[in-house]
Amino acid sequence: MASGRTDVDGPIHADYRVTMTAGFDSVEALVFDMFGTVVDWRSSVSAEVAVHLHDHVPDFVPLEFADAWRAEYQPSMERVRDGDREFVRLDVLHRENLETVLRGLDVDPDSIPAPVLDETNLAWHRLDPWPDAIAGLTRLKEQFIIAPLSNANIRLALDVAKRAGVPWDAILGAEVAGAYKPDPDAYLRTAEILGLEPHQVAMVAAHNSDLAAAQSLGLRTAFVRRPTEHGPDQTIDLEPTGDWDIIAEDFEDLADRIV
Amino acid sequence: MASGRTDVDGPIHADYRVTMTAGFDSVEALVFDMFGTVVDWRSSVSAEVAVHLHDHVPDFVPLEFADAWRAEYQPSMERVRDGDREFVRLDVLHRENLETVLRGLDVDPDSIPAPVLDETNLAWHRLDPWPDAIAGLTRLKEQFIIAPLSNANIRLALDVAKRAGVPWDAILGAEVAGAYKPDPDAYLRTAEILGLEPHQVAMVAAHNSDLAAAQSLGLRTAFVRRPTEHGPDQTIDLEPTGDWDIIAEDFEDLADRIV
Repeated sequence: MASGRTDVDGPIHADYRVTMTAGFDSVEALVFDMFGTVVDWRSSVSAEVAVHLHDHVPDFVPLEFADAWRAEYQPSMERVRDGDREFVRLDVLHRENLETVLRGLDVDPDSIPAPVLDETNLAWHRLDPWPDAIAGLTRLKEQFIIAPLSNANIRLALDVAKRAGVPWDAILGAEVAGAYKPDPDAYLRTAEILGLEPHQVAMVAAHNSDLAAAQSLGLRTAFVRRPTEHGPDQTIDLEPTGDWDIIAEDFEDLADRIV
Repeated sequence: MASGRTDVDGPIHADYRVTMTAGFDSVEALVFDMFGTVVDWRSSVSAEVAVHLHDHVPDFVPLEFADAWRAEYQPSMERVRDGDREFVRLDVLHRENLETVLRGLDVDPDSIPAPVLDETNLAWHRLDPWPDAIAGLTRLKEQFIIAPLSNANIRLALDVAKRAGVPWDAILGAEVAGAYKPDPDAYLRTAEILGLEPHQVAMVAAHNSDLAAAQSLGLRTAFVRRPTEHGPDQTIDLEPTGDWDIIAEDFEDLADRIV
């Protein structure tokens, strides 16, 4: 593939691909960030809330609602990571965050029937993969164990995979590890469950912060560009900002490089 | 299908099938015992040990060795279930039990190179499914969530599935639940992880004791006959001994009844 890291360090050196993939020789399992990396949460959630909340929220802008909901994601996990709250599934946090977003729009959550809120919360179980994801994962599965290492709970990840046909070998992640990324336990317990040393596991993500946490613990890293995860005006994670082992344009490109 | 429970309660009544499947109306997930129900552990393990231990054990009878190894399975988990030992993965118990079996044959485990023992222990990761299993599961997956609820650890179940092409939606079981069957937590935590009430989950097993534990907790039950799990002279679990919701001849028959 002609792609590569042309952005931060200047042009690609002739030996760049060799250097880039050498660290992958020991890798037996690829673990994937899900929201943004495997699936396009923004388009999917906005389409879902447009259906379920249109009659309940005045001046409703679905994409803005999706962004606001996602904005509550990290703060809600932070309380668990800080030890201020016991581990609860992401479904629980999403439901609480939904009510927070509604209140921010001056909508009383109690004014909306609970079944409507429950169904809206399942928007996160019906996320569409990026167009290259299934084809790429199917190829990667031939040579590697593939599993999500997502903050999604098991049922959420399972529903997304079953609906879209994502061929995971197992559903791993925060609920199995009992810790939310970037807590080190999320990465290290996942490697241990797989019976692998950290250097035998590669984290695949569109987010530099996720890869930084994984790399600091000894995991290998692959950055996949998802330049429209946050819409056409995205400003973050457009480029790799760390010394990741692989930079790929999408999952097909990742498969071209390592399968 | 013409099969059914003709054994313990006399002939099938005309309305038997209706009664038998009515309890399944609420079922959204099928969870499967693995050793004996999905895979033929005895043939697979005996073939593996024949290769790996032939040079190390005198008067070696592979099928007897496999039976002896399996005989240590329940006692080794019992210490965990009784609270005498913290939960450890089945891989750990299998490795300890392997040494126990060797000592029972007057073979010092230390006389065998550790890599040989490690490789032998992986016999349990390379179990072949019964001939009907993949085809049946593929059909069942169209309508239900399908997952193992096995005492296997995640990596063991993953390796078996990846090698044989078992299309699980997720790998659940003892390691995810933190409890070995028939501890109630193994069943109830699995249902909770799936976001389901017990009656929305059906346990599929070739073992009456497994189904009895599941039924006592409110799960639905399906007995699948595996009359040669223990070889041609099998004496246990040849017939259903409880009031299970479904009796099936194999996984294709199970799919015929409920898909």
